[in-house]
Amino acid sequence: MDLPTLSIGQFDLVYNFFSLTIATMFASGIFFFLGQRLVAPKYRVGVIVSGIVVFVAGYHYYRIWESWHAAYTLTEGSYVASGVPFNDAYRYADWLITVPLLLIELIAVLGLAKAISGPMLRNLSIASVIMIALGYPGEVASDSGTAWIFWFLAMIPFLYILYVLFAQLKDTIANETGEVATLFKRARAVIAISWWVYPLAFVLPILGVLSGAVGEVGLQVGYSIADLIAKAFYGVVIFQIARAKSDADGYEPA
Amino acid sequence: MDLPTLSIGQFDLVYNFFSLTIATMFASGIFFFLGQRLVAPKYRVGVIVSGIVVFVAGYHYYRIWESWHAAYTLTEGSYVASGVPFNDAYRYADWLITVPLLLIELIAVLGLAKAISGPMLRNLSIASVIMIALGYPGEVASDSGTAWIFWFLAMIPFLYILYVLFAQLKDTIANETGEVATLFKRARAVIAISWWVYPLAFVLPILGVLSGAVGEVGLQVGYSIADLIAKAFYGVVIFQIARAKSDADGYEPA
Repeated sequence: MDLPTLSIGQFDLVYNFFSLTIATMFASGIFFFLGQRLVAPKYRVGVIVSGIVVFVAGYHYYRIWESWHAAYTLTEGSYVASGVPFNDAYRYADWLITVPLLLIELIAVLGLAKAISGPMLRNLSIASVIMIALGYPGEVASDSGTAWIFWFLAMIPFLYILYVLFAQLKDTIANETGEVATLFKRARAVIAISWWVYPLAFVLPILGVLSGAVGEVGLQVGYSIADLIAKAFYGVVIFQIARAKSDADGYEPA
Repeated sequence: MDLPTLSIGQFDLVYNFFSLTIATMFASGIFFFLGQRLVAPKYRVGVIVSGIVVFVAGYHYYRIWESWHAAYTLTEGSYVASGVPFNDAYRYADWLITVPLLLIELIAVLGLAKAISGPMLRNLSIASVIMIALGYPGEVASDSGTAWIFWFLAMIPFLYILYVLFAQLKDTIANETGEVATLFKRARAVIAISWWVYPLAFVLPILGVLSGAVGEVGLQVGYSIADLIAKAFYGVVIFQIARAKSDADGYEPA
């Protein structure tokens, strides 16, 4: 997609949102790395993985922010495309690492028996990798027909993931106490709602809905907000689940 | 706002103040991250969050310092605007993250029952995000009428935050021991006094009071000092509260 010419205010809004996202991702990573010591050992892997996810996201947002900076040049009071391509594919590199980990966080923090969690982790990881891998050829395709085909193919593992989270995990959650059940439902809702931003952000430009300066700014700010919710805020909910379960187990941090 | 021409001494004063602020923020962050292990587990989240706040502020001061450097060029013994805009909006990105966290620190370190702290944390976080979000359009507005409207709107959540800290928390603090009560009042006073710098720094340039070289230098140095007090010094008081409460609980660090 060609980069539209932006006003200084539009360019800066995206630039500052990327910067805010970098800061929030690394800050929440430090919180999870230090905070994991406050939960019982069996729930720590889930919280450590939350920290890893936001660190990887922070790294990729740093790269995206650099690429955004290089892709534009200030000319006569406007930001115009510099000719250096804006590398949006960093997002796919990020998702390939972080999306399986986001699902692993949720299953790990529930502290399920291995006989249940093992196959579920395997299936969710494979489905999420297939989902991202199928999205990428659609993203870089030059014609909308190819883009649509890969979009539909990628939606199959996406819907399978939602099926696992809502149908397969239903009975597991029925055994949890009030607070843990509420928090688990919140974490699952974060996935079920915020993840829709990605397939929508994929199709809206094809449909011509997100075009021009406002479309590009909306897309980048929208991605940033979705990533903050799906990774940093979600990680906080995972941490709260770990704390609530530690409390319920009678764990006293030392 | 156009950047005024500065003498070498004026430019360096701001430059060195930014550098001092970067160093102090990261240094106090390391102190809080290591020091949290010396307080009882239930107060550690407050101290960890203090560390995150100063790390995020240190990051933003690094960016502001870079932007200051890029915004000026040394010409015939004076620093004149280079044409690259000075990105003051980093401050808003910083506040959007740190201001809710500063309030969370204070509530978290009190170790209140969840039934009390939960709604209070939610209300204070929402109010502070609304306050910052309302300030931004005023900051970037080109006419003073728009700036004043957003200033007044942003003052509503600001006064609400002070109301919660002074009226709603009054009874809670009455139950605390002497030292904790004194320290809590100090932390609250830091907020109630240092936070006024921000709405004042917003209106003084509109009133024409902070204009020219001295005004710009005063504004940047004033912001730096206010941030050092409101974040690093405030974090030290939060740490002291956590230590005093750990002592009162009979906690022995291992």
